[in-house]
Amino acid sequence: MNAYQRSAALAGAIRLDVFTAIAEGNATFQAIAGRCQTSERGMRILCDYLVIMGFLTKQGANYGLTPATALFLDRRSPAYLGSAEKFLSSPMLTDGFKDVAAIVRKGGEVMSSHGTMEPNHPIWVQFAQAMAPMMAMPAELIAKLVGAPSGAGWQVLDIAAGHGLFGIAIARQNPNATIVAADWPAVLEVAKANAAKAGVSARYATLPGSAFETDFGGAYDMVLLTNFLHHFDPATCEKLLRKVHAALKPGGRAVTLEFVPNEDRVSPPTPAAFSMVMLGTTEAGDAYTFSELDRMFRNAGFAGSELHSIEPFPSRVILSQR
Amino acid sequence: MNAYQRSAALAGAIRLDVFTAIAEGNATFQAIAGRCQTSERGMRILCDYLVIMGFLTKQGANYGLTPATALFLDRRSPAYLGSAEKFLSSPMLTDGFKDVAAIVRKGGEVMSSHGTMEPNHPIWVQFAQAMAPMMAMPAELIAKLVGAPSGAGWQVLDIAAGHGLFGIAIARQNPNATIVAADWPAVLEVAKANAAKAGVSARYATLPGSAFETDFGGAYDMVLLTNFLHHFDPATCEKLLRKVHAALKPGGRAVTLEFVPNEDRVSPPTPAAFSMVMLGTTEAGDAYTFSELDRMFRNAGFAGSELHSIEPFPSRVILSQR
Repeated sequence: MNAYQRSAALAGAIRLDVFTAIAEGNATFQAIAGRCQTSERGMRILCDYLVIMGFLTKQGANYGLTPATALFLDRRSPAYLGSAEKFLSSPMLTDGFKDVAAIVRKGGEVMSSHGTMEPNHPIWVQFAQAMAPMMAMPAELIAKLVGAPSGAGWQVLDIAAGHGLFGIAIARQNPNATIVAADWPAVLEVAKANAAKAGVSARYATLPGSAFETDFGGAYDMVLLTNFLHHFDPATCEKLLRKVHAALKPGGRAVTLEFVPNEDRVSPPTPAAFSMVMLGTTEAGDAYTFSELDRMFRNAGFAGSELHSIEPFPSRVILSQR
Repeated sequence: MNAYQRSAALAGAIRLDVFTAIAEGNATFQAIAGRCQTSERGMRILCDYLVIMGFLTKQGANYGLTPATALFLDRRSPAYLGSAEKFLSSPMLTDGFKDVAAIVRKGGEVMSSHGTMEPNHPIWVQFAQAMAPMMAMPAELIAKLVGAPSGAGWQVLDIAAGHGLFGIAIARQNPNATIVAADWPAVLEVAKANAAKAGVSARYATLPGSAFETDFGGAYDMVLLTNFLHHFDPATCEKLLRKVHAALKPGGRAVTLEFVPNEDRVSPPTPAAFSMVMLGTTEAGDAYTFSELDRMFRNAGFAGSELHSIEPFPSRVILSQR
């Protein structure tokens, strides 16, 4: 019942930059409090709580970072993920879980008429900005998995591109790839800025609007569907997949990134628990099993799908052949 | 960052009475949804999430209770603890953790001038009603620990009696004990009702008002201080303990129930994490170590203190001799 205090304490520690303060060499709660400009009493209790949660170590009076917090929560680290806190603790997301009895009764979100699926919902700009650092590693792993370093002359459509990192990683690894990024107009501004930072703007085009209504153009060698299908029910997914199928060249591939639970739907814990996030924030989304995804792709005309792991990242990749 | 969804899902499951529905023999999500009058989709996702959290088992399509949830969350069980959800998810408590950065900066609660320590704060009536079932077992264990079955003619003062269960357990185990329960007036109505239910009303008197201002009378053989000291700073605790010392007969005992972390302040997890609850809801309270508590009792004139476990309950008992 008190688990919500864990989310709140981690968010507080990230906002106060406690992990960076410790990385800089402040070891006692007095020194950390001085660096973060807080009370000593509050910092002592927060640091002990972070030890209990496994985010810090404690030796006598000295606190230290774990390997994971040193890598991901020290603001000076290139792998810093603290910006994800802004999205993950945003009321647009957390409000979805204020009354779980109500969402279970209804079978979907109770926040508004369409929850986070409303056209141009501002949460997706925040998502694109906040979650990019967390997606840098899987983006590189996926580009490698699909063979981007081969250098083949690819036309790639990136649906619901968000921060754009998945398409951008392919463009960086494959100098002969051209990316077309589709998303809401305000979100595409974030993706374009990231493409410019990565030096791939010349091979980066955008397609603003709803993935369900925009004319994709094509034909493409590859269509990226990263963290998108889980927002919709299977019939809606199949409708989109038929459109994706039509936009692919013969032999082209759909590359899907999803939290894919095992067929028992309760393991592994992170992908399986993602169903609850979809219950709270969408009308009919879900974390689909591989057999459910494979069925959707076959119903949409694809020849078949393969499931790939990108460990240590908990999401999995589905490669589907036109 | 998503841990808050665990609190929300457990609260939702208790409110929908999912555990009772399963105990009654509803095993599939369709059957449980029918019994709890929810959508099937919502119930499937909730039940899978409860399996991931360890509150349910899953065999094929059938969900089952664990030994702990069968004992504590089936509404028909005499040990049912579901009522605690009302208190533990009450905004009066949870609002204290809306901004952990702010409470760490200040070093105490930011909800109002005195948080839950305001005179006659309504949270304590809710606490007395909701938390009684959770305290039934420790109350019996403590009455046994202090030797209530000896039948000695005890005068017992129960400070901040709340639901009254600690004094009532002593009165039930010792037919020659008389209890004086001190608390806010509205809270004492809950304690009196519980004393009547236990058949000990004839030996149950009340003393309404602040423990810091009321004349305790006395002299007493025993003073109960259950879950009270953690709300205050050590100087305030010592002030109260001097008053307790003066109200005890020579050789009398103070019986304190507290979450007592080890001297490292980060173990065991439940008592150690309680410091965060005090940071969020009080101005200067804490989960004190035994050495801190022992010092407060000595400073207040007590001869010495002993620490006792009442496993499997995570709180511990401090017996202090006048």
